[in-house]
Amino acid sequence: MTAHLDTDIAIGGLFEEENSAEIVNARISADANPRLAEVMAVLTRHLHAAIKEIEPTHEEWFKAIEFLTQTGQMCTDWRQEYILLSDVLGATMLVDAINHRRPKGATPNTILGPFYVANAPHYENGANICLDGKGEPTLVSGRVLDTTGRPIAGATLDIWQTNDDGFYDVQQKGVQPDYNLRGLFTTDADGYYAFRTVKPRHYPIPADGPVGKLLGDLGRHPNRAAHLHFIVTANGYDQVITHIFTPDCQYLHEDTVFGVKKELIAEFTTESDPAVAERYDLSVPFLAVNWDFVLTPL
Amino acid sequence: MTAHLDTDIAIGGLFEEENSAEIVNARISADANPRLAEVMAVLTRHLHAAIKEIEPTHEEWFKAIEFLTQTGQMCTDWRQEYILLSDVLGATMLVDAINHRRPKGATPNTILGPFYVANAPHYENGANICLDGKGEPTLVSGRVLDTTGRPIAGATLDIWQTNDDGFYDVQQKGVQPDYNLRGLFTTDADGYYAFRTVKPRHYPIPADGPVGKLLGDLGRHPNRAAHLHFIVTANGYDQVITHIFTPDCQYLHEDTVFGVKKELIAEFTTESDPAVAERYDLSVPFLAVNWDFVLTPL
Repeated sequence: MTAHLDTDIAIGGLFEEENSAEIVNARISADANPRLAEVMAVLTRHLHAAIKEIEPTHEEWFKAIEFLTQTGQMCTDWRQEYILLSDVLGATMLVDAINHRRPKGATPNTILGPFYVANAPHYENGANICLDGKGEPTLVSGRVLDTTGRPIAGATLDIWQTNDDGFYDVQQKGVQPDYNLRGLFTTDADGYYAFRTVKPRHYPIPADGPVGKLLGDLGRHPNRAAHLHFIVTANGYDQVITHIFTPDCQYLHEDTVFGVKKELIAEFTTESDPAVAERYDLSVPFLAVNWDFVLTPL
Repeated sequence: MTAHLDTDIAIGGLFEEENSAEIVNARISADANPRLAEVMAVLTRHLHAAIKEIEPTHEEWFKAIEFLTQTGQMCTDWRQEYILLSDVLGATMLVDAINHRRPKGATPNTILGPFYVANAPHYENGANICLDGKGEPTLVSGRVLDTTGRPIAGATLDIWQTNDDGFYDVQQKGVQPDYNLRGLFTTDADGYYAFRTVKPRHYPIPADGPVGKLLGDLGRHPNRAAHLHFIVTANGYDQVITHIFTPDCQYLHEDTVFGVKKELIAEFTTESDPAVAERYDLSVPFLAVNWDFVLTPL
Protein backbone atom coordinates (compact mmCIF):
# COMPACT_ATOMS: atom_id res chain seq x y z
CA MET A 1 0.00 0.00 0.00
CA THR A 2 1.36 3.35 -1.00
CA ALA A 3 1.02 5.92 1.71
CA HIS A 4 -0.42 8.76 -0.35
CA LEU A 5 -2.31 11.13 1.85
CA ASP A 6 -5.98 11.54 1.25
CA THR A 7 -6.68 14.00 -1.55
CA ASP A 8 -9.08 16.00 0.56
CA ILE A 9 -6.17 17.28 2.65
CA ALA A 10 -5.75 21.04 2.43
CA ILE A 11 -3.39 21.64 -0.50
CA GLY A 12 -2.89 25.39 -0.19
CA GLY A 13 0.17 26.55 -2.06
CA LEU A 14 0.92 23.26 -3.79
CA PHE A 15 2.02 23.48 -7.39
CA GLU A 16 -0.40 22.81 -10.22
CA GLU A 17 0.36 23.41 -13.88
CA GLU A 18 -3.04 24.96 -14.56
CA ASN A 19 -2.87 27.89 -12.14
CA SER A 20 0.88 27.93 -11.61
CA ALA A 21 1.37 31.72 -11.70
CA GLU A 22 -1.44 32.33 -9.21
CA ILE A 23 0.14 29.82 -6.81
CA VAL A 24 3.51 31.58 -7.06
CA ASN A 25 2.01 35.04 -6.66
CA ALA A 26 -0.06 33.95 -3.65
CA ARG A 27 3.22 33.59 -1.77
CA ILE A 28 3.94 37.32 -1.91
CA SER A 29 3.45 38.71 1.57
CA ALA A 30 0.79 41.32 2.23
CA ASP A 31 3.59 43.26 3.94
CA ALA A 32 5.75 43.49 0.79
CA ASN A 33 6.18 46.85 -0.92
CA PRO A 34 2.95 47.16 -2.97
CA ARG A 35 4.72 48.32 -6.13
CA LEU A 36 7.27 45.48 -5.97
CA ALA A 37 4.44 43.02 -5.33
CA GLU A 38 2.52 44.32 -8.35
CA VAL A 39 5.58 44.27 -10.62
CA MET A 40 6.59 40.73 -9.64
CA ALA A 41 3.03 39.44 -9.98
CA VAL A 42 2.75 40.80 -13.53
CA LEU A 43 6.21 39.50 -14.50
CA THR A 44 5.49 36.06 -13.04
CA ARG A 45 2.13 35.85 -14.82
CA HIS A 46 3.72 36.70 -18.18
CA LEU A 47 6.71 34.39 -17.54
CA HIS A 48 4.39 31.46 -16.88
CA ALA A 49 2.17 32.32 -19.84
CA ALA A 50 5.23 32.49 -22.12
CA ILE A 51 6.49 29.11 -20.84
CA LYS A 52 3.06 27.57 -21.46
CA GLU A 53 3.06 28.88 -25.02
CA ILE A 54 6.63 27.87 -25.74
CA GLU A 55 6.64 24.53 -23.89
CA PRO A 56 10.44 24.53 -23.66
CA THR A 57 12.33 21.28 -23.25
CA HIS A 58 14.68 21.05 -20.26
CA GLU A 59 17.59 21.60 -22.68
CA GLU A 60 15.99 24.74 -24.11
CA TRP A 61 15.28 26.08 -20.62
CA PHE A 62 18.87 25.53 -19.64
CA LYS A 63 20.03 27.34 -22.80
CA ALA A 64 17.92 30.29 -21.66
CA ILE A 65 19.51 30.11 -18.18
CA GLU A 66 22.96 30.07 -19.81
CA PHE A 67 22.11 33.04 -22.03
CA LEU A 68 20.93 35.12 -19.07
CA THR A 69 24.03 34.14 -17.08
CA GLN A 70 26.43 35.01 -19.90
CA THR A 71 24.66 38.32 -20.48
CA GLY A 72 25.20 39.24 -16.82
CA GLN A 73 28.80 38.12 -16.89
CA MET A 74 29.51 40.24 -20.00
CA CYS A 75 28.74 43.39 -18.00
CA THR A 76 31.57 45.55 -16.70
CA ASP A 77 31.82 49.14 -15.51
CA TRP A 78 31.89 50.24 -19.16
CA ARG A 79 29.74 47.58 -20.86
CA GLN A 80 26.07 46.98 -19.99
CA GLU A 81 24.98 43.92 -21.98
CA TYR A 82 21.50 43.83 -20.35
CA ILE A 83 20.80 47.36 -21.55
CA LEU A 84 21.84 46.20 -25.02
CA LEU A 85 19.39 43.30 -24.69
CA SER A 86 16.65 45.68 -23.60
CA ASP A 87 17.55 47.93 -26.56
CA VAL A 88 17.46 45.27 -29.28
CA LEU A 89 14.20 43.80 -27.96
CA GLY A 90 12.56 47.24 -28.20
CA ALA A 91 12.04 47.31 -24.42
CA THR A 92 14.12 50.44 -23.88
CA MET A 93 12.18 52.39 -26.49
CA LEU A 94 8.90 51.09 -25.06
CA VAL A 95 9.78 52.20 -21.51
CA ASP A 96 10.88 55.56 -22.95
CA ALA A 97 7.63 55.95 -24.90
CA ILE A 98 5.51 55.12 -21.84
CA ASN A 99 7.35 57.74 -19.79
CA HIS A 100 7.20 60.47 -22.44
CA ARG A 101 3.73 60.61 -23.89
CA ARG A 102 3.63 64.14 -25.26
CA PRO A 103 1.04 66.21 -27.09
CA LYS A 104 1.03 66.05 -30.88
CA GLY A 105 3.56 68.50 -32.28
CA ALA A 106 5.96 68.24 -29.31
CA THR A 107 9.37 66.74 -30.09
CA PRO A 108 9.28 63.00 -29.28
CA ASN A 109 11.72 61.56 -26.78
CA THR A 110 14.15 58.77 -27.62
CA ILE A 111 16.72 56.80 -25.68
CA LEU A 112 19.86 58.35 -24.22
CA GLY A 113 22.20 55.55 -25.31
CA PRO A 114 25.51 54.66 -23.72
CA PHE A 115 27.72 57.35 -25.30
CA TYR A 116 26.48 60.52 -23.65
CA VAL A 117 29.15 62.46 -21.76
CA ALA A 118 28.28 65.36 -19.48
CA ASN A 119 30.16 68.69 -19.48
CA ALA A 120 30.92 69.01 -23.18
CA PRO A 121 32.44 72.37 -24.25
CA HIS A 122 30.04 75.31 -24.43
CA TYR A 123 30.25 77.01 -27.84
CA GLU A 124 28.88 80.19 -29.38
CA ASN A 125 26.15 79.61 -31.97
CA GLY A 126 27.64 78.76 -35.33
CA ALA A 127 30.73 77.01 -33.94
CA ASN A 128 32.09 73.82 -35.46
CA ILE A 129 31.99 70.75 -33.20
CA CYS A 130 33.85 68.57 -35.70
CA LEU A 131 37.45 68.62 -34.47
CA ASP A 132 38.93 65.87 -36.69
CA GLY A 133 38.07 67.41 -40.08
CA LYS A 134 36.50 64.22 -41.41
CA GLY A 135 33.11 63.96 -43.13
CA GLU A 136 30.65 66.14 -45.04
CA PRO A 137 30.31 69.61 -43.43
CA THR A 138 26.74 70.22 -42.33
CA LEU A 139 25.07 73.28 -40.86
CA VAL A 140 22.35 72.45 -38.34
CA SER A 141 20.15 75.32 -37.24
CA GLY A 142 16.65 76.13 -36.12
CA ARG A 143 14.72 77.18 -33.06
CA VAL A 144 13.54 75.86 -29.74
CA LEU A 145 9.81 76.58 -29.40
CA ASP A 146 7.01 75.91 -26.96
CA THR A 147 3.89 74.03 -28.02
CA THR A 148 2.17 77.31 -28.96
CA GLY A 149 5.00 78.18 -31.35
CA ARG A 150 6.66 80.81 -29.15
CA PRO A 151 10.47 80.79 -29.15
CA ILE A 152 12.28 79.81 -25.95
CA ALA A 153 15.34 81.97 -25.27
CA GLY A 154 18.22 80.55 -23.21
CA ALA A 155 17.42 76.90 -23.92
CA THR A 156 20.45 74.58 -23.83
CA LEU A 157 21.18 72.03 -26.56
CA ASP A 158 23.62 69.28 -25.63
CA ILE A 159 24.73 67.55 -28.85
CA TRP A 160 26.76 64.41 -29.56
CA GLN A 161 27.32 62.10 -32.53
CA THR A 162 29.79 59.71 -34.17
CA ASN A 163 32.59 60.87 -36.40
CA ASP A 164 32.77 59.92 -40.07
CA ASP A 165 34.35 56.55 -39.18
CA GLY A 166 31.28 55.60 -37.12
CA PHE A 167 32.82 55.97 -33.65
CA TYR A 168 32.16 58.28 -30.72
CA ASP A 169 35.22 60.06 -29.29
CA VAL A 170 34.98 57.96 -26.10
CA GLN A 171 35.34 54.80 -28.18
CA GLN A 172 38.57 56.10 -29.69
CA LYS A 173 40.38 57.92 -26.92
CA GLY A 174 43.76 59.07 -28.23
CA VAL A 175 42.61 58.60 -31.83
CA GLN A 176 39.93 61.28 -31.94
CA PRO A 177 40.37 64.67 -30.22
CA ASP A 178 38.62 64.80 -26.82
CA TYR A 179 35.04 66.08 -27.13
CA ASN A 180 35.09 65.59 -30.88
CA LEU A 181 31.54 66.08 -32.17
CA ARG A 182 30.16 67.15 -28.78
CA GLY A 183 29.01 70.59 -27.75
CA LEU A 184 26.64 72.71 -25.70
CA PHE A 185 24.77 75.60 -27.36
CA THR A 186 22.31 78.16 -26.01
CA THR A 187 19.39 79.65 -27.94
CA ASP A 188 19.38 83.42 -28.55
CA ALA A 189 16.59 85.86 -27.69
CA ASP A 190 14.58 84.58 -30.67
CA GLY A 191 15.08 80.90 -29.71
CA TYR A 192 17.64 80.33 -32.48
CA TYR A 193 20.59 77.96 -32.36
CA ALA A 194 23.13 76.99 -35.04
CA PHE A 195 26.20 74.78 -35.17
CA ARG A 196 28.51 73.19 -37.71
CA THR A 197 29.06 69.47 -37.71
CA VAL A 198 29.38 66.64 -40.24
CA LYS A 199 26.73 64.29 -41.55
CA PRO A 200 26.50 61.36 -39.12
CA ARG A 201 26.79 57.78 -40.27
CA HIS A 202 25.48 54.44 -39.10
CA TYR A 203 27.45 52.32 -36.65
CA PRO A 204 27.11 48.93 -34.99
CA ILE A 205 26.27 48.43 -31.33
CA PRO A 206 28.84 46.19 -29.58
CA ALA A 207 28.14 42.79 -31.14
CA ASP A 208 30.88 40.62 -29.61
CA GLY A 209 28.74 39.42 -26.67
CA PRO A 210 25.67 37.21 -26.12
CA VAL A 211 23.33 39.91 -27.45
CA GLY A 212 25.31 40.23 -30.68
CA LYS A 213 25.23 36.45 -31.02
CA LEU A 214 21.45 36.46 -30.50
CA LEU A 215 21.04 39.17 -33.16
CA GLY A 216 23.12 37.07 -35.55
CA ASP A 217 21.08 33.95 -34.80
CA LEU A 218 17.90 35.91 -35.53
CA GLY A 219 19.34 37.13 -38.83
CA ARG A 220 19.42 40.71 -37.55
CA HIS A 221 22.29 43.18 -38.11
CA PRO A 222 23.69 45.26 -35.20
CA ASN A 223 23.52 48.69 -36.87
CA ARG A 224 22.00 51.88 -35.63
CA ALA A 225 20.58 54.25 -38.24
CA ALA A 226 22.77 57.38 -38.66
CA HIS A 227 21.78 60.14 -36.22
CA LEU A 228 22.68 63.14 -34.09
CA HIS A 229 21.80 63.08 -30.37
CA PHE A 230 20.30 66.04 -28.53
CA ILE A 231 19.29 66.86 -24.99
CA VAL A 232 17.28 70.06 -25.00
CA THR A 233 16.70 71.73 -21.64
CA ALA A 234 14.89 74.95 -20.74
CA ASN A 235 13.60 76.30 -17.44
CA GLY A 236 9.93 75.48 -16.99
CA TYR A 237 9.84 72.85 -19.76
CA ASP A 238 10.03 69.06 -19.90
CA GLN A 239 13.58 68.09 -20.92
CA VAL A 240 13.74 66.36 -24.29
CA ILE A 241 16.26 63.61 -25.08
CA THR A 242 15.99 63.02 -28.78
CA HIS A 243 17.65 62.19 -32.11
CA ILE A 244 17.71 63.56 -35.64
CA PHE A 245 18.04 60.84 -38.27
CA THR A 246 19.44 61.17 -41.78
CA PRO A 247 16.81 60.24 -44.39
CA ASP A 248 19.10 58.26 -46.68
CA CYS A 249 20.75 55.87 -44.22
CA GLN A 250 20.45 52.28 -45.38
CA TYR A 251 19.36 51.30 -41.85
CA LEU A 252 16.71 54.01 -41.40
CA HIS A 253 13.88 51.48 -41.38
CA GLU A 254 15.72 48.87 -39.41
CA ASP A 255 17.57 50.68 -36.62
CA THR A 256 18.61 47.78 -34.38
CA VAL A 257 17.37 49.54 -31.21
CA PHE A 258 14.12 50.85 -32.78
CA GLY A 259 15.07 54.48 -32.08
CA VAL A 260 13.69 55.95 -35.32
CA LYS A 261 10.40 57.84 -35.25
CA LYS A 262 9.08 59.36 -38.44
CA GLU A 263 8.85 62.79 -36.75
CA LEU A 264 12.63 62.64 -36.21
CA ILE A 265 13.76 62.03 -39.80
CA ALA A 266 15.34 65.25 -41.05
CA GLU A 267 16.02 66.57 -44.55
CA PHE A 268 19.67 67.23 -45.35
CA THR A 269 19.52 69.80 -48.13
CA THR A 270 22.40 70.94 -50.34
CA GLU A 271 22.88 74.72 -50.01
CA SER A 272 25.07 77.18 -51.87
CA ASP A 273 24.18 80.62 -50.50
CA PRO A 274 27.59 82.37 -50.39
CA ALA A 275 26.55 84.71 -47.54
CA VAL A 276 25.57 81.78 -45.31
CA ALA A 277 28.71 79.89 -46.34
CA GLU A 278 30.90 82.82 -45.39
CA ARG A 279 29.09 83.40 -42.09
CA TYR A 280 29.72 79.80 -40.98
CA ASP A 281 33.13 79.42 -42.66
CA LEU A 282 31.83 76.78 -45.10
CA SER A 283 32.68 76.07 -48.74
CA VAL A 284 29.79 75.85 -51.18
CA PRO A 285 27.95 73.62 -51.65
CA PHE A 286 27.32 72.40 -48.09
CA LEU A 287 24.69 70.33 -46.35
CA ALA A 288 22.11 71.98 -44.12
CA VAL A 289 19.43 70.82 -41.72
CA ASN A 290 16.77 73.18 -40.50
CA TRP A 291 15.32 71.69 -37.33
CA ASP A 292 13.04 73.04 -34.63
CA PHE A 293 12.53 71.46 -31.22
CA VAL A 294 9.14 71.82 -29.52
CA LEU A 295 9.09 71.59 -25.71
CA THR A 296 6.10 71.05 -23.45
CA PRO A 297 5.69 73.16 -20.30
CA LEU A 298 6.16 71.39 -16.97
CA MET B 1 10.19 75.60 -41.20
CA THR B 2 10.89 72.27 -39.58
CA ALA B 3 12.04 69.68 -42.06
CA HIS B 4 9.80 66.81 -40.97
CA LEU B 5 9.35 64.40 -43.79
CA ASP B 6 5.89 63.90 -45.11
CA THR B 7 3.95 61.40 -43.01
CA ASP B 8 2.98 59.35 -46.05
CA ILE B 9 6.58 58.17 -46.38
CA ALA B 10 6.93 54.42 -45.94
CA ILE B 11 7.44 53.82 -42.23
CA GLY B 12 8.11 50.09 -42.22
CA GLY B 13 9.89 49.00 -39.07
CA LEU B 14 9.58 52.30 -37.22
CA PHE B 15 8.75 52.07 -33.55
CA GLU B 16 5.22 52.66 -32.31
CA GLU B 17 4.04 52.07 -28.76
CA GLU B 18 0.79 50.45 -29.87
CA ASN B 19 2.23 47.53 -31.85
CA SER B 20 5.74 47.57 -30.44
CA ALA B 21 6.18 43.80 -30.10
CA GLU B 22 5.01 43.15 -33.66
CA ILE B 23 7.53 45.71 -34.95
CA VAL B 24 10.37 44.02 -33.04
CA ASN B 25 9.34 40.53 -34.12
CA ALA B 26 9.03 41.59 -37.77
CA ARG B 27 12.81 42.04 -37.75
CA ILE B 28 13.43 38.32 -37.25
CA SER B 29 14.78 36.93 -40.50
CA ALA B 30 12.88 34.27 -42.40
CA ASP B 31 16.19 32.40 -42.47
CA ALA B 32 16.47 32.19 -38.65
CA ASN B 33 16.06 28.83 -36.93
CA PRO B 34 12.25 28.45 -36.79
CA ARG B 35 12.22 27.32 -33.15
CA LEU B 36 14.45 30.21 -32.03
CA ALA B 37 12.27 32.61 -34.02
CA GLU B 38 9.12 31.25 -32.34
CA VAL B 39 10.63 31.35 -28.85
CA MET B 40 11.93 34.91 -29.21
CA ALA B 41 8.64 36.12 -30.73
CA VAL B 42 6.65 34.75 -27.77
CA LEU B 43 9.12 36.11 -25.21
CA THR B 44 9.17 39.54 -26.85
CA ARG B 45 5.37 39.66 -27.01
CA HIS B 46 5.08 38.84 -23.29
CA LEU B 47 7.93 41.20 -22.36
CA HIS B 48 6.21 44.10 -24.10
CA ALA B 49 2.82 43.17 -22.65
CA ALA B 50 4.33 43.05 -19.15
CA ILE B 51 5.99 46.47 -19.64
CA LYS B 52 2.70 47.94 -20.84
CA GLU B 53 0.92 46.60 -17.75
CA ILE B 54 3.64 47.68 -15.33
CA GLU B 55 4.50 51.02 -16.95
CA PRO B 56 7.91 51.11 -15.24
CA THR B 57 9.66 54.40 -14.67
CA HIS B 58 13.19 54.71 -16.08
CA GLU B 59 14.50 54.21 -12.52
CA GLU B 60 12.47 51.02 -12.07
CA TRP B 61 13.63 49.69 -15.44
CA PHE B 62 17.23 50.33 -14.50
CA LYS B 63 16.68 48.51 -11.18
CA ALA B 64 15.48 45.52 -13.21
CA ILE B 65 18.60 45.76 -15.41
CA GLU B 66 20.77 45.86 -12.28
CA PHE B 67 18.98 42.85 -10.77
CA LEU B 68 19.49 40.77 -13.92
CA THR B 69 23.15 41.83 -14.08
CA GLN B 70 23.82 40.97 -10.44
CA THR B 71 22.06 37.63 -10.81
CA GLY B 72 24.38 36.75 -13.69
CA GLN B 73 27.43 37.95 -11.84
CA MET B 74 26.54 35.82 -8.77
CA CYS B 75 26.93 32.67 -10.88
CA THR B 76 30.07 30.57 -10.58
CA ASP B 77 30.96 27.00 -11.46
CA TRP B 78 29.21 25.88 -8.27
CA ARG B 79 26.44 28.49 -7.88
CA GLN B 80 23.71 29.02 -10.47
CA GLU B 81 21.70 32.03 -9.33
CA TYR B 82 19.50 32.07 -12.48
CA ILE B 83 18.37 28.51 -11.77
CA LEU B 84 17.49 29.68 -8.25
CA LEU B 85 15.50 32.53 -9.78
CA SER B 86 13.72 30.10 -12.08
CA ASP B 87 13.05 27.85 -9.06
CA VAL B 88 11.57 30.50 -6.76
CA LEU B 89 9.36 31.91 -9.54
CA GLY B 90 7.90 28.45 -10.14
CA ALA B 91 9.34 28.37 -13.67
CA THR B 92 11.49 25.29 -13.07
CA MET B 93 8.54 23.28 -11.79
CA LEU B 94 6.38 24.51 -14.67
CA VAL B 95 8.94 23.46 -17.28
CA ASP B 96 9.24 20.11 -15.47
CA ALA B 97 5.47 19.62 -15.41
CA ILE B 98 5.16 20.43 -19.14
CA ASN B 99 7.83 17.87 -19.96
CA HIS B 100 6.43 15.12 -17.72
CA ARG B 101 2.70 14.90 -18.21
CA ARG B 102 2.02 11.34 -17.06
CA PRO B 103 -1.10 9.22 -16.76
CA LYS B 104 -3.01 9.36 -13.47
CA GLY B 105 -1.47 6.96 -10.97
CA ALA B 106 2.08 7.30 -12.35
CA THR B 107 4.61 8.86 -9.96
CA PRO B 108 4.87 12.60 -10.74
CA ASN B 109 8.19 14.11 -11.70
CA THR B 110 9.82 16.94 -9.78
CA ILE B 111 12.97 18.99 -10.17
CA LEU B 112 16.44 17.51 -9.85
CA GLY B 113 17.85 20.34 -7.75
CA PRO B 114 21.52 21.32 -7.49
CA PHE B 115 22.69 18.68 -4.99
CA TYR B 116 22.50 15.48 -7.03
CA VAL B 117 25.81 13.61 -7.31
CA ALA B 118 26.26 10.69 -9.71
CA ASN B 119 27.96 7.42 -8.74
CA ALA B 120 26.78 7.12 -5.15
CA PRO B 121 27.63 3.79 -3.46
CA HIS B 122 25.53 0.79 -4.48
CA TYR B 123 24.05 -0.94 -1.42
CA GLU B 124 22.14 -4.15 -0.73
CA ASN B 125 18.49 -3.64 0.12
CA GLY B 126 18.07 -2.79 3.79
CA ALA B 127 21.39 -0.97 4.12
CA ASN B 128 21.73 2.24 6.10
CA ILE B 129 22.74 5.32 4.05
CA CYS B 130 23.04 7.56 7.14
CA LEU B 131 26.76 7.59 7.87
CA ASP B 132 26.88 10.34 10.50
CA GLY B 133 24.50 8.78 13.03
CA LYS B 134 22.39 11.94 13.38
CA GLY B 135 18.59 12.08 13.18
CA GLU B 136 15.54 9.85 13.60
CA PRO B 137 16.12 6.39 12.09
CA THR B 138 13.60 5.69 9.35
CA LEU B 139 12.94 2.60 7.26
CA VAL B 140 11.84 3.40 3.70
CA SER B 141 10.54 0.48 1.67
CA GLY B 142 8.10 -0.41 -1.06
CA ARG B 143 7.99 -1.48 -4.66
CA VAL B 144 8.60 -0.15 -8.14
CA LEU B 145 5.55 -0.97 -10.28
CA ASP B 146 4.34 -0.34 -13.80
CA THR B 147 1.07 1.46 -14.47
CA THR B 148 -0.82 -1.84 -14.49
CA GLY B 149 0.44 -2.68 -10.98
CA ARG B 150 3.05 -5.27 -12.04
CA PRO B 151 6.34 -5.14 -10.15
CA ILE B 152 9.50 -4.10 -12.01
CA ALA B 153 12.55 -6.20 -11.05
CA GLY B 154 16.01 -4.71 -11.41
CA ALA B 155 14.89 -1.09 -11.22
CA THR B 156 17.50 1.30 -9.81
CA LEU B 157 16.72 3.85 -7.09
CA ASP B 158 19.24 6.66 -6.68
CA ILE B 159 18.55 8.41 -3.36
CA TRP B 160 19.89 11.60 -1.75
CA GLN B 161 18.82 13.89 1.09
CA THR B 162 20.09 16.32 3.72
CA ASN B 163 21.42 15.20 7.07
CA ASP B 164 19.73 16.14 10.33
CA ASP B 165 21.46 19.53 10.33
CA GLY B 166 19.80 20.42 7.02
CA PHE B 167 22.88 20.13 4.78
CA TYR B 168 23.83 17.82 1.93
CA ASP B 169 27.23 16.11 2.22
CA VAL B 170 28.58 18.22 -0.67
CA GLN B 171 27.78 21.38 1.29
CA GLN B 172 29.85 20.14 4.25
CA LYS B 173 32.84 18.39 2.75
CA GLY B 174 35.13 17.31 5.57
CA VAL B 175 32.32 17.73 8.11
CA GLN B 176 30.01 14.98 6.87
CA PRO B 177 31.32 11.62 5.63
CA ASP B 178 31.53 11.47 1.83
CA TYR B 179 28.30 10.12 0.29
CA ASN B 180 26.45 10.57 3.57
CA LEU B 181 22.74 9.99 2.92
CA ARG B 182 23.27 8.93 -0.70
CA GLY B 183 22.88 5.45 -2.14
CA LEU B 184 21.89 3.30 -5.10
CA PHE B 185 19.50 0.37 -4.59
CA THR B 186 18.10 -2.25 -6.96
CA THR B 187 14.64 -3.81 -6.73
CA ASP B 188 14.42 -7.56 -6.20
CA ALA B 189 12.49 -10.07 -8.31
CA ASP B 190 9.22 -8.86 -6.77
CA GLY B 191 10.05 -5.18 -7.35
CA TYR B 192 10.87 -4.55 -3.68
CA TYR B 193 13.44 -2.11 -2.32
CA ALA B 194 14.26 -1.09 1.25
CA PHE B 195 16.80 1.17 2.91
CA ARG B 196 17.48 2.79 6.24
CA THR B 197 17.90 6.52 6.52
CA VAL B 198 16.84 9.35 8.83
CA LYS B 199 13.85 11.63 8.63
CA PRO B 200 14.80 14.57 6.37
CA ARG B 201 14.40 18.13 7.48
CA HIS B 202 13.78 21.47 5.80
CA TYR B 203 16.65 23.63 4.67
CA PRO B 204 17.13 27.02 3.03
CA ILE B 205 18.22 27.52 -0.56
CA PRO B 206 21.28 29.83 -0.81
CA ALA B 207 19.83 33.19 0.19
CA ASP B 208 22.91 35.43 0.22
CA GLY B 209 22.52 36.60 -3.40
CA PRO B 210 20.09 38.74 -5.43
CA VAL B 211 17.45 35.98 -5.44
CA GLY B 212 17.55 35.68 -1.64
CA LYS B 213 17.23 39.46 -1.41
CA LEU B 214 14.22 39.38 -3.76
CA LEU B 215 12.58 36.65 -1.65
CA GLY B 216 13.14 38.76 1.46
CA ASP B 217 11.71 41.86 -0.23
CA LEU B 218 8.61 39.83 -1.18
CA GLY B 219 8.22 38.63 2.40
CA ARG B 220 9.02 35.04 1.36
CA HIS B 221 11.27 32.64 3.29
CA PRO B 222 13.98 30.62 1.48
CA ASN B 223 13.08 27.18 2.86
CA ARG B 224 12.45 23.96 1.04
CA ALA B 225 9.96 21.54 2.61
CA ALA B 226 11.71 18.46 4.07
CA HIS B 227 12.16 15.70 1.49
CA LEU B 228 14.05 12.74 0.11
CA HIS B 229 15.16 12.80 -3.54
CA PHE B 230 14.84 9.80 -5.87
CA ILE B 231 15.77 8.99 -9.43
CA VAL B 232 14.07 5.73 -10.40
CA THR B 233 15.31 4.07 -13.58
CA ALA B 234 14.25 0.81 -15.25
CA ASN B 235 14.81 -0.53 -18.73
CA GLY B 236 11.84 0.20 -20.98
CA TYR B 237 10.33 2.82 -18.63
CA ASP B 238 10.34 6.59 -18.46
CA GLN B 239 12.87 7.65 -15.81
CA VAL B 240 11.29 9.37 -12.82
CA ILE B 241 13.02 12.17 -10.90
CA THR B 242 10.91 12.74 -7.81
CA HIS B 243 10.67 13.58 -4.12
CA ILE B 244 8.97 12.19 -1.03
CA PHE B 245 7.90 14.90 1.40
CA THR B 246 7.36 14.58 5.14
CA PRO B 247 3.76 15.43 6.08
CA ASP B 248 4.55 17.47 9.19
CA CYS B 249 7.16 19.90 7.87
CA GLN B 250 6.24 23.48 8.71
CA TYR B 251 7.04 24.45 5.12
CA LEU B 252 5.04 21.68 3.42
CA HIS B 253 2.53 24.13 1.96
CA GLU B 254 5.06 26.80 1.15
CA ASP B 255 8.10 25.06 -0.33
CA THR B 256 10.06 27.99 -1.76
CA VAL B 257 10.60 26.22 -5.11
CA PHE B 258 7.02 24.84 -5.38
CA GLY B 259 8.28 21.24 -5.48
CA VAL B 260 5.51 19.71 -3.36
CA LYS B 261 2.72 17.75 -5.06
CA LYS B 262 0.03 16.16 -2.95
CA GLU B 263 0.75 12.74 -4.50
CA LEU B 264 4.29 13.00 -3.09
CA ILE B 265 3.45 13.60 0.58
CA ALA B 266 4.26 10.42 2.49
CA GLU B 267 3.13 9.09 5.86
CA PHE B 268 5.90 8.52 8.37
CA THR B 269 4.42 5.92 10.74
CA THR B 270 5.84 4.83 14.10
CA GLU B 271 6.51 1.07 14.06
CA SER B 272 7.52 -1.35 16.77
CA ASP B 273 7.50 -4.79 15.14
CA PRO B 274 10.55 -6.48 16.79
CA ALA B 275 11.13 -8.83 13.81
CA VAL B 276 11.34 -5.91 11.37
CA ALA B 277 13.51 -3.95 13.82
CA GLU B 278 15.93 -6.84 14.14
CA ARG B 279 16.03 -7.43 10.38
CA TYR B 280 17.07 -3.81 9.73
CA ASP B 281 19.17 -3.33 12.87
CA LEU B 282 16.76 -0.76 14.31
CA SER B 283 15.63 -0.06 17.88
CA VAL B 284 11.92 0.08 18.54
CA PRO B 285 10.02 2.28 18.03
CA PHE B 286 11.25 3.50 14.62
CA LEU B 287 9.79 5.54 11.78
CA ALA B 288 8.72 3.83 8.57
CA VAL B 289 7.60 4.94 5.15
CA ASN B 290 5.94 2.52 2.76
CA TRP B 291 6.23 4.01 -0.70
CA ASP B 292 5.64 2.62 -4.17
CA PHE B 293 6.89 4.20 -7.39
CA VAL B 294 4.81 3.77 -10.54
CA LEU B 295 6.65 4.04 -13.87
CA THR B 296 5.19 4.52 -17.33
CA PRO B 297 6.48 2.41 -20.23
CA LEU B 298 8.50 4.19 -22.90
